[in-house]
Amino acid sequence: MAMVDISDKPEVFREATATGTIKLKTETIRLINEGKIAKGDPLQTAKIAGILAAKRTSTLIPLCHPLPLTNVEIKIRILDKTTVHVASTVKTKAQTGVEMEALVATAVSLLTIWDMVKQYEKDVKGEYPSTAIEGIRVVKKIKEGIPSERKRKKA
Amino acid sequence: MAMVDISDKPEVFREATATGTIKLKTETIRLINEGKIAKGDPLQTAKIAGILAAKRTSTLIPLCHPLPLTNVEIKIRILDKTTVHVASTVKTKAQTGVEMEALVATAVSLLTIWDMVKQYEKDVKGEYPSTAIEGIRVVKKIKEGIPSERKRKKA
Amino acid sequence: MAMVDISDKPEVFREATATGTIKLKTETIRLINEGKIAKGDPLQTAKIAGILAAKRTSTLIPLCHPLPLTNVEIKIRILDKTTVHVASTVKTKAQTGVEMEALVATAVSLLTIWDMVKQYEKDVKGEYPSTAIEGIRVVKKIKEGIPSERKRKKA
Amino acid sequence: MAMVDISDKPEVFREATATGTIKLKTETIRLINEGKIAKGDPLQTAKIAGILAAKRTSTLIPLCHPLPLTNVEIKIRILDKTTVHVASTVKTKAQTGVEMEALVATAVSLLTIWDMVKQYEKDVKGEYPSTAIEGIRVVKKIKEGIPSERKRKKA
Amino acid sequence: MAMVDISDKPEVFREATATGTIKLKTETIRLINEGKIAKGDPLQTAKIAGILAAKRTSTLIPLCHPLPLTNVEIKIRILDKTTVHVASTVKTKAQTGVEMEALVATAVSLLTIWDMVKQYEKDVKGEYPSTAIEGIRVVKKIKEGIPSERKRKKA
Amino acid sequence: MAMVDISDKPEVFREATATGTIKLKTETIRLINEGKIAKGDPLQTAKIAGILAAKRTSTLIPLCHPLPLTNVEIKIRILDKTTVHVASTVKTKAQTGVEMEALVATAVSLLTIWDMVKQYEKDVKGEYPSTAIEGIRVVKKIKEGIPSERKRKKA
Repeated sequence: MAMVDISDKPEVFREATATGTIKLKTETIRLINEGKIAKGDPLQTAKIAGILAAKRTSTLIPLCHPLPLTNVEIKIRILDKTTVHVASTVKTKAQTGVEMEALVATAVSLLTIWDMVKQYEKDVKGEYPSTAIEGIRVVKKIKEGIPSERKRKKA
Repeated sequence: MAMVDISDKPEVFREATATGTIKLKTETIRLINEGKIAKGDPLQTAKIAGILAAKRTSTLIPLCHPLPLTNVEIKIRILDKTTVHVASTVKTKAQTGVEMEALVATAVSLLTIWDMVKQYEKDVKGEYPSTAIEGIRVVKKIKEGIPSERKRKKA
Repeated sequence: MAMVDISDKPEVFREATATGTIKLKTETIRLINEGKIAKGDPLQTAKIAGILAAKRTSTLIPLCHPLPLTNVEIKIRILDKTTVHVASTVKTKAQTGVEMEALVATAVSLLTIWDMVKQYEKDVKGEYPSTAIEGIRVVKKIKEGIPSERKRKKA
Repeated sequence: MAMVDISDKPEVFREATATGTIKLKTETIRLINEGKIAKGDPLQTAKIAGILAAKRTSTLIPLCHPLPLTNVEIKIRILDKTTVHVASTVKTKAQTGVEMEALVATAVSLLTIWDMVKQYEKDVKGEYPSTAIEGIRVVKKIKEGIPSERKRKKA
Repeated sequence: MAMVDISDKPEVFREATATGTIKLKTETIRLINEGKIAKGDPLQTAKIAGILAAKRTSTLIPLCHPLPLTNVEIKIRILDKTTVHVASTVKTKAQTGVEMEALVATAVSLLTIWDMVKQYEKDVKGEYPSTAIEGIRVVKKIKEGIPSERKRKKA
Repeated sequence: MAMVDISDKPEVFREATATGTIKLKTETIRLINEGKIAKGDPLQTAKIAGILAAKRTSTLIPLCHPLPLTNVEIKIRILDKTTVHVASTVKTKAQTGVEMEALVATAVSLLTIWDMVKQYEKDVKGEYPSTAIEGIRVVKKIKEGIPSERKRKKA
């Protein structure tokens, strides 16, 4: 049992994007769109929770390395009448990638949306017959050999 | 923006179970079954990470109340050739339910499995074409009016 | 060096409210009012940060007891052309009061506002000639002898 | 909602100092000076709490970047008969400044002093008529283009 | 893999004391006694670190339950020319004991002393030929059937 | 009270190994060897807890710097009929050493073993007459002037 030893790997620019969705009731999505969720804005709250969680990845996932994240950005949109879509992008200049950070940000954002709209999703028995988090995936990864190359591409 | 005020709610026994799955390659599942994952046992590591995360729920999900969890149990099994299934059960005696704790435990367990088998799931570009976390749901909730009633049921 | 021993104190309902202000430029307040702060809504972000911080009080303030908070609510309003006012109310049923939790919530909310509007407050040297956090105080404390008495008062 | 993207900024030496005060009763200041605070030395405890908090800044303030702090120093002095003054200096070599870290250190130090002397500041109703944290400000910021320049200045 | 299920256990008063020692050089002990440790008072710092760590036990030790600690007290004394002795006492009213909290407090206090005096313990190669933490034990445990019985014993 | 200022120190490869032991009953060691500990595998759990704790060192030990750990590895073996031995190795490229991280990993691993086998170590009074953590020491430290030198040695 050991972390992967990254001592001899070079620090390069890394980026990863992870996405996922949460299935909610049509009525809940409508309340979100109308700004009527009683506990506060679920999307805004989810973004903040996701960003904070990304920075705690190495204390949540046992073998993750602590990394100096240079950016975390979370985009959330209503995909359709029953689906909210979260996309988290994390960047660093480090010796290993940030896909776990992007995945943690996405998962915690989705969980926070659930928590914010709990009261509208529960049935009379306090259960959640239709609520579900689906399709948490890594959709993009960038790893550049040398930082200068990256700037060139941008130009 | 405020937590739900649970000051006047009675403390009662509460239990919640959340489940979810992670899709992996057939080859990865085979390596797990054979105990050959280089970073260590992914299922054992996932259970521990999930239990620890359940206890940090109120610091991850902004409006969750801190609760005195009396039990967290995580069961993980290989469902089929490409699927690992996680089920987390959380108990407390408190003024509000523990479904968010069960969901956080399940999500962090699944993310930990991903991290433990990353090297087998990546393609040549370092991406994850087939890995995905699916179907995170609350499958059971118990809330009992009075603790004595609970013991009676058990008898 | 020891925490105060509260082992023999009864658990009673407790509530505390702490307030404080942050002095900002007129221009910054205008941007907040118009929803034009580039990093996102500073007041919403401050509320979430404050609520999360309240729940971590006993890990920040060395001799604070861990308490089962039953509510944290943060209200933020623009007081005048250069002042934002934060009021945090925390509740619990516990053996000691929650004034430190309310103070931590208020302080972290105010610090978060500062962070969100940093770029508008800095002068050309990157300094903050006029930004200041002022008047962090406890403005209200409730401690009731017995919970039933509380409900009676409400009726 | 996103952190500022600092991926392309150079790592340079950075330093920030934040100060603030807490207003206490004359009697409380006398007890501090005489080393008679029952819970232990409030100034020493405040320094340690402030240093620890500085290191947790990026988990408290949502959009702060995690930074490799190279130094945190906290100086506390009795300013006059009713005022304690805290000054926190934080250093790093990083892509963004450390003013939020210095502010968090100062705020948590001041809050810790409050907690350590609570019993002397309370009135008969358990309230704090005169206690207040005032004037939390950034009083100094250094950002050097290249580390060598820094050493030259020192020489 | 699961925490022990304490859902049906009664909440009773619990107390545990754990002790341990750290072996230091005679010269280091002399510097501690004379108040000349450059980084600050190691015993005071160790007490604060130990108290804070006790409160984080359930996030450090995977299967520990989160408990509402009602007191943590740490006593440190110079035992002889090469030994510092730490004794941590933790109290709660809960469904399980606090020996792990007392052990964590003692271990982190001892580790903090090490950190505070590192520079005096290192040899020319930067190693620690004589420094060692020894004898971390639980020396006392109290568990009372009913709280009233406890008060009677005290009288 | 201040952390040591490492702002002007170069970032070099650093490694430290700390070891320690826990004394258990012969019967407990037998149960570990036979995989019969009811709470789960204590050695596996201890490794994970130790790795996670190493990454939280700077939030546990007040004056430790936050360091970008590049590897943490924990080896645990049954030394004899009553002793389990833990060895934690931590690596970084940083401006200061990682001996505290290795010590924290070792201490938390040992404490986790204790927690996992508690029920077998307790006597009828719930006490631990023979359980003890002993000999936590730093047994190895590496600090290399330049990374290239390190690779040369390896070759």
